[in-house]
Amino acid sequence: MGYLPVPLKQLIEHFSALPGIGRKTAQRLAFYILDMPEEQAKGFAKAILDAKTSIHNCKICQNFTDKEICDICDSPERDPSVICVVEDPKDVMAFERLQEYKGLYHVLHGLISPLDGIGPESIRIKELLQRLQNGDVREIIMATNPTIEGEATAMYLSKLLKPLGYKVSRLAFGIPIGGELEYADNVTLNRALENRTEL
Amino acid sequence: MGYLPVPLKQLIEHFSALPGIGRKTAQRLAFYILDMPEEQAKGFAKAILDAKTSIHNCKICQNFTDKEICDICDSPERDPSVICVVEDPKDVMAFERLQEYKGLYHVLHGLISPLDGIGPESIRIKELLQRLQNGDVREIIMATNPTIEGEATAMYLSKLLKPLGYKVSRLAFGIPIGGELEYADNVTLNRALENRTEL
Repeated sequence: MGYLPVPLKQLIEHFSALPGIGRKTAQRLAFYILDMPEEQAKGFAKAILDAKTSIHNCKICQNFTDKEICDICDSPERDPSVICVVEDPKDVMAFERLQEYKGLYHVLHGLISPLDGIGPESIRIKELLQRLQNGDVREIIMATNPTIEGEATAMYLSKLLKPLGYKVSRLAFGIPIGGELEYADNVTLNRALENRTEL
Repeated sequence: MGYLPVPLKQLIEHFSALPGIGRKTAQRLAFYILDMPEEQAKGFAKAILDAKTSIHNCKICQNFTDKEICDICDSPERDPSVICVVEDPKDVMAFERLQEYKGLYHVLHGLISPLDGIGPESIRIKELLQRLQNGDVREIIMATNPTIEGEATAMYLSKLLKPLGYKVSRLAFGIPIGGELEYADNVTLNRALENRTEL
């Protein structure tokens, strides 16, 4: 594509750098931008800059917000006695989609992973301990992913928090609803067996 | 997602407006932008503005360019006696991918479509007639899509240009290479039969 004008090539490059966007999709999106009304393209560029400059972490839960304290931490309708600890702001989104959970969150922005040189001090554990000091919290739900790092982080926090008198729980892991035993992997099946509940 | 900060929501909206980008992908891309180094996000916003402001149509062939005359029209290595007439800049890209065609292009930026109120004066036919006046051109290849509008535009241009003494040709349409007769639609099969060539 040597003949393409440089600004168009650069726009294609930027789109290609996004996750899940291949070369062809990037070209299609770049051409779409060229066909857009100028106002819309300017709005898009501004939205990128605005998001990047105005969004930071909530002082309390470390989730993304454009205020000092995010809407969830600030809401009088949320139950301040439960904190759900997650790895990433995207996990908050998954729980909020349910519209079931009424407690607060704490976003770690990472998981403990000694192999990658990420220790407890590299993620937002300090901030979690700090906010626990106001005394409202009763239960802390470990909602990290069921990976090695997720389990290790949940274990680490559990050992840290239980002696302080908090109820620490972990999400249930097992056969997904609609899944079939026949196709479940061994680890999942084992977990489902171990964590069986009485009927 | 009522709790998401406004600048993030707006960025998600802008991504959702792009073709083929659904709600979930838009969210993923917006979160990715938030995680990007600031320089890269600024570069992305600038690339959108740059492309939008610096890219316009080539004075001669009407393809996208950031110069007055595009690299293809300006190249001494291209054959100025053949012009390939296409609907859209993306079609130029398809031909350039071949690295076979050495002539020039003319981008119509649309097709004649009376039902949509698009007459010959709404697309770049005037500009095609103008550039033909320098006398270099021998053959004009109609490379519009094999749709009703594409065929109508090719026919219209052919009737206009043939009396002026130009050789006017049309892309071949038929069974695609690797395709199977059994699965070809009737129109394609009929076309392949009509346009059979002697061996």
